[in-house]
Amino acid sequence: MVKVIKTVQDMQKEADRIRQSGKTIGFVPTMGYLHEGHLSLIRLARQRADVVVVSIYVNPTQFGPNEDLDQYPRDFRHDEALLEQEKVDIVFYPSDKEMYPEGDAGFVEVKGLTESLCGASRPGHFRGVTTICTKLFHAVKPHFAVFGQKDAQQAAVIKRLVKDLHFDLDVVVGPIVREADGLAMSSRNTYLSSDERRDALSLDQVLKMAEEMVNEGERNPAVLYKAMHKLIAAKPHLKIDYISIVDPDTLEDLDVVENRALIALAVFAGKTRLIDNVIVEV
Amino acid sequence: MVKVIKTVQDMQKEADRIRQSGKTIGFVPTMGYLHEGHLSLIRLARQRADVVVVSIYVNPTQFGPNEDLDQYPRDFRHDEALLEQEKVDIVFYPSDKEMYPEGDAGFVEVKGLTESLCGASRPGHFRGVTTICTKLFHAVKPHFAVFGQKDAQQAAVIKRLVKDLHFDLDVVVGPIVREADGLAMSSRNTYLSSDERRDALSLDQVLKMAEEMVNEGERNPAVLYKAMHKLIAAKPHLKIDYISIVDPDTLEDLDVVENRALIALAVFAGKTRLIDNVIVEV
Repeated sequence: MVKVIKTVQDMQKEADRIRQSGKTIGFVPTMGYLHEGHLSLIRLARQRADVVVVSIYVNPTQFGPNEDLDQYPRDFRHDEALLEQEKVDIVFYPSDKEMYPEGDAGFVEVKGLTESLCGASRPGHFRGVTTICTKLFHAVKPHFAVFGQKDAQQAAVIKRLVKDLHFDLDVVVGPIVREADGLAMSSRNTYLSSDERRDALSLDQVLKMAEEMVNEGERNPAVLYKAMHKLIAAKPHLKIDYISIVDPDTLEDLDVVENRALIALAVFAGKTRLIDNVIVEV
Repeated sequence: MVKVIKTVQDMQKEADRIRQSGKTIGFVPTMGYLHEGHLSLIRLARQRADVVVVSIYVNPTQFGPNEDLDQYPRDFRHDEALLEQEKVDIVFYPSDKEMYPEGDAGFVEVKGLTESLCGASRPGHFRGVTTICTKLFHAVKPHFAVFGQKDAQQAAVIKRLVKDLHFDLDVVVGPIVREADGLAMSSRNTYLSSDERRDALSLDQVLKMAEEMVNEGERNPAVLYKAMHKLIAAKPHLKIDYISIVDPDTLEDLDVVENRALIALAVFAGKTRLIDNVIVEV
C-alpha cells in the first residue's frame, strides 16, 4: 500500500525516520494526472532509492492569472492506483493551505535562466516553480529528486537552484516519453481536439528534422530556426510561442551550434500550450 | 578543540553524521568579530543542543554598494579562541567562493516584512540575509537556529522565512545584550568616536523612556514617536534614520499600542548606523 501523507510535519517526521534508518529517499514531484512520462521518472527513482516519495500538488503560484489552474486535470484515485502498481512508498498530497499557510510572502527565485523561453511568456511561472520545489524539498528531504527533460528549462532552473542554494540533493533528469505517434506526453494533451492533436505531431517532427540537419553539418541556429518555423507555421491549428536554440545549462542563445545545444519550442494548439525539445550533441 | 569546517560539502557530511547518531544541532549564524551579544546566543544554543555550530561569514550580498563591507571588522583567531572557551563544537567558516560559487542568481526573499524599517533604508539587505540564511541552513542542517533580538526585523523575517518555506527547524531569539552604559552590543560599535558613543547612549535611554510612557498608560504611537524624536534630534552627533512602533511579527505600523509592540529605531552616529529596540507588552 502506498502511504498517503498530507501534512508537511508528518512528511518531515517520516523523512527523518527513513534517513535515521540509513535509507535513501528518491523524490518525484508532480502535479498529478499521471501518465507514462511521470511513471518513467518514478521508475528511475525506484531503481536508485530505498524509499520513493511522489508528491501530487497542483501549485497555484506557477500558473498565471489567465492560465489553466482551475481546469488543470486532477484524478487522485487513479493516480494512487498507478503509484500502487509502481510500488511507490509514499505519496505526499498536501492542500494549498498546507503549502501556503500564510500566503506567498516567502519566495525563491533564480535570475537569468528564468527570463527567456517559457519564462518570457509565463511571467512569475518559475518563481512559483522554484518556491514550491524549495518547500517540497524541505518537506520530503530527498537524497535526489527526478525531473523530466520535457520541461527542459525547469530542469536547468532546478539544477541551478539546488547548486546556488546548496540543497544537499542530486537532480536527476529523465528523458522525454512520447506517445506512439511522437507527441510528447503531457497532462495537458487531454485538452486537445483531434485536429489540434494531429497538427501537434509536427512538434516532434520539426525537432527530429532539426536534429538531422545538425547531424548533417548545419551549425547556424538561424537556418534551423527558419526551417522549423516554416513547418509549424503551415499548420492551421498551431501558433508559435517560441523556437529557441540555446545552451542547455545557461539557456543563453547560441550563435553557433557546438558541443551541446537545446532546441526548444512552445506552441499553442488552439488554447493549449505545448512544449517540446531535443538536446543535440555535436 | 573547536573543529573548523570550510566547505559546504564537509559541513553537510558532518551534519548528516551528527543527525544519524541521534544528536541535535544548535546553530548560531554570525558575521564574526564576536562580542558578548553573540556569546549570549551561543550559550543559549549550548544549553539546548548536543552539538553547537557557529558560522562566521561576512555575507557580501546583505551590504549595500555604499555600506561597510570592506571595513567590516574581522578577527578569526580571536573569534576562534572565544568559541573554544564557549565549548562550541564546530565553526563553519566558508569563503565567498564557497557560498556563492556561481554568483547570486538563486535568491530567497520575504515580501512585505522586508520593505519597512531597515529594509527601507537598506534596499536588498534582507534579500541578502534570507538568501545566506537559506544556504547556511542547508549546509548546517540545524534543529534550531539562534538569532538576536537586537536585529528585531531580521528575527521577524527569519521566522517568516522558516515558516513560509517549511524549513524543518526552530527559530530561537535571544535578548539584547548591552554594555554597562546601556549601548546595545554591536560589532559596529568599534567604529564610534568617543563623542559619537556618548550621544549613542541616548538610543537606550529613549527606548527606556518610551517603555515607561507605555507602562504609565500612553497608547498613542505618535506621542511616543514625538518624545523619542525630540531627545535624539537634540544630540549633535546623531541623525535619525527611523523610529517605528510596529507589530513585532508583521512589522506593520500600529495605530494604537496594544498587546505587544516593537519600538525600533535606527540612527546614524557619524557614519555608523546603529539600531536598537524594545518590545513592550500592554
